[in-house]
Amino acid sequence: MLGNFTYCNPTKLYFGKDALEGLDEELPKYGKNVLLVYGGGSIKKNGIYDRVVAILQRNGKTVYEDPGVMPNPTTEKLKEGCERALAADADLILAVGGGSVCDYAKAVSVSAHCGEDPWEKYYLRFEEPADDLPIIPVGCVLTMVGTGSEMNGGSVITNRAQKLKIGHVFGERVFPKFSVLNPEFTFTLPKYQMISGIYDIMSHILEQYFSGTDDNTSDYLMEGLLRSLIHSAEIAAKAPLDYEARSNIMWIATWALNTLVAKGKTTDWEVHMLGQAVGAHTDATHGMTLSAVSMPYYRHILPYGTAKFARYAASVWNVDPRGKSEMQTAREGLAAMEAWMTQLGLVMHLSELGVTEGMLEGIAKSTLVMDGGYKVLTAEEILAVLKESL
Amino acid sequence: MLGNFTYCNPTKLYFGKDALEGLDEELPKYGKNVLLVYGGGSIKKNGIYDRVVAILQRNGKTVYEDPGVMPNPTTEKLKEGCERALAADADLILAVGGGSVCDYAKAVSVSAHCGEDPWEKYYLRFEEPADDLPIIPVGCVLTMVGTGSEMNGGSVITNRAQKLKIGHVFGERVFPKFSVLNPEFTFTLPKYQMISGIYDIMSHILEQYFSGTDDNTSDYLMEGLLRSLIHSAEIAAKAPLDYEARSNIMWIATWALNTLVAKGKTTDWEVHMLGQAVGAHTDATHGMTLSAVSMPYYRHILPYGTAKFARYAASVWNVDPRGKSEMQTAREGLAAMEAWMTQLGLVMHLSELGVTEGMLEGIAKSTLVMDGGYKVLTAEEILAVLKESL
Repeated sequence: MLGNFTYCNPTKLYFGKDALEGLDEELPKYGKNVLLVYGGGSIKKNGIYDRVVAILQRNGKTVYEDPGVMPNPTTEKLKEGCERALAADADLILAVGGGSVCDYAKAVSVSAHCGEDPWEKYYLRFEEPADDLPIIPVGCVLTMVGTGSEMNGGSVITNRAQKLKIGHVFGERVFPKFSVLNPEFTFTLPKYQMISGIYDIMSHILEQYFSGTDDNTSDYLMEGLLRSLIHSAEIAAKAPLDYEARSNIMWIATWALNTLVAKGKTTDWEVHMLGQAVGAHTDATHGMTLSAVSMPYYRHILPYGTAKFARYAASVWNVDPRGKSEMQTAREGLAAMEAWMTQLGLVMHLSELGVTEGMLEGIAKSTLVMDGGYKVLTAEEILAVLKESL
Repeated sequence: MLGNFTYCNPTKLYFGKDALEGLDEELPKYGKNVLLVYGGGSIKKNGIYDRVVAILQRNGKTVYEDPGVMPNPTTEKLKEGCERALAADADLILAVGGGSVCDYAKAVSVSAHCGEDPWEKYYLRFEEPADDLPIIPVGCVLTMVGTGSEMNGGSVITNRAQKLKIGHVFGERVFPKFSVLNPEFTFTLPKYQMISGIYDIMSHILEQYFSGTDDNTSDYLMEGLLRSLIHSAEIAAKAPLDYEARSNIMWIATWALNTLVAKGKTTDWEVHMLGQAVGAHTDATHGMTLSAVSMPYYRHILPYGTAKFARYAASVWNVDPRGKSEMQTAREGLAAMEAWMTQLGLVMHLSELGVTEGMLEGIAKSTLVMDGGYKVLTAEEILAVLKESL
């Protein structure tokens, strides 16, 4: 924990099978007008919509709707959401959905009253909301697991015209005031999506883990989260309705990206940059773009962070380091990880996601270069990793 | 994570060598009158007092003093603090010290305006502060590590006349608004106190770890905290001014007892009950009362939680479980723990703390029985553990 840092995370979490009852505790804190934000309507099929609306009504709220939030929320949709929030004079935005719906709700919350183009202000110029800007409070009812958006200030918005997808990490004033985490609400998700989400979580942890040389408690916490995730993912892959496994995965997702495990560290995030570039050129599921590039990326940076990869092998994958070189231990760890990923059903090659060799140069050009990890990649290295991932 | 639970921890932490600068960010949020609470005056010797007062003055605050908070803050002192807070019309209570000073500041914050006897209301009847009770905001500048009081609602007060020492765990309205954690502020602590604090932290984690049979991410997080603590404690015992080790220990102390790692679990706390009973009959340092009773206690409950003790051995103490029975693995883990404790310089026998055989029955009678762990002890078992600890 060598550097100076601050930590503050005021989001209140309601967790468990009865978590939705937390709404009865939270709703009285806010005014009458609630903007209900959700996605494509799966919550109407699985009954969550009806349950939420019933609770809003018994708390005397007037419900205004903002449906149709897409997986990558656009600037056009954000404009529409701001208009709806203003028309409703919203006292609370209630996001019911996955990370995109939560991200979008936060974007509306800081944009509705800001009087400027939010895309330019927050996502291009990375400005912070003014101290006196009214920020509409946000609450979340989570139905998909992976992004951690339910307990952080992250908000990713896509500008289709500019072909840009940019995330702004807002401060704690923009964090959700509360989030409802009921693991059963994730049960209807298809297995492919569940596994993709699991790898998104794993990548969040690994991209904060593989950095730095100091001895940091955050790394030990991440090893704990990884061991729990690996264990529960194996159970969930065989029995997707196993409550215990799914509840652990939900909790790990929140703590993987609510700022705790990055404290005192630099972070890498190059795998996310590679995956997001793939996502910009295909329709591939986010977590699968990460899994497809991970092994080539980690093998590529292995020589620059061998000691940490050896520690990872021993602490997370139970590789016995005795009588082995650091490099040998590290390689055995990555091999164990690769076998586990394959067994789980993750996509291990970009070609399975519709990427062709001819697309690689374009993807490489779209890939942002990060400087917090063990190696700052050159343009040639990015292309080489992508080729290796094909 | 089988049960329903809520999580909320709004305390803002400023961590690192420059953490005190966080006061410049926090102080403008509060009114002019600051009640400065501290202990026996060591902060005047090491310069922390002067630095804090200078920051208060440059932020235009009027400083009122409430010094002399003792290691076990009493009901008499609490009454005096309430009078001082009211006389100052305090807008903020700034606690500069260790866990006792923070505990006391929180007690004053909920008691000054409550209009009742706080001992009876909060510590005997365990009532919560009314929703409309004005609670004076508390900030902490930490100078000793161990209790976690800087990021939780805990507050232990002692009634000397009634020979009772009782803790109330308040809700998040009573948590410190902010805490300043500068590891260097703990450097002047004598080594005996540092090691005692390290075992207090370890016991906080273990007493939440040794419970339950479900598969819970909290247990994995605790294994991470324990591994980091063991590693950093070894370094700090040899080189008490090692910043990296001391900073990890400070961070672990906060996360060991800020409610996170108990989520979804029951907790034990019998070691604390035994240790506190010893403390009520001697002048022994808190952490050392815990270390002296721990090994006999854990060996006693081992048959009732063998699987968890075996997991502890493998995950925390690197015991190789192959070819061994669960019990054998578990015993090797406890032996490794005992050797580590002895090496660190912890007190391993109650006789070293001034306890004689004739005192044991009295201590046993003062020991509260907890029911969240692997075995609810009978009166005979409590006496047997104490005898074993002598």
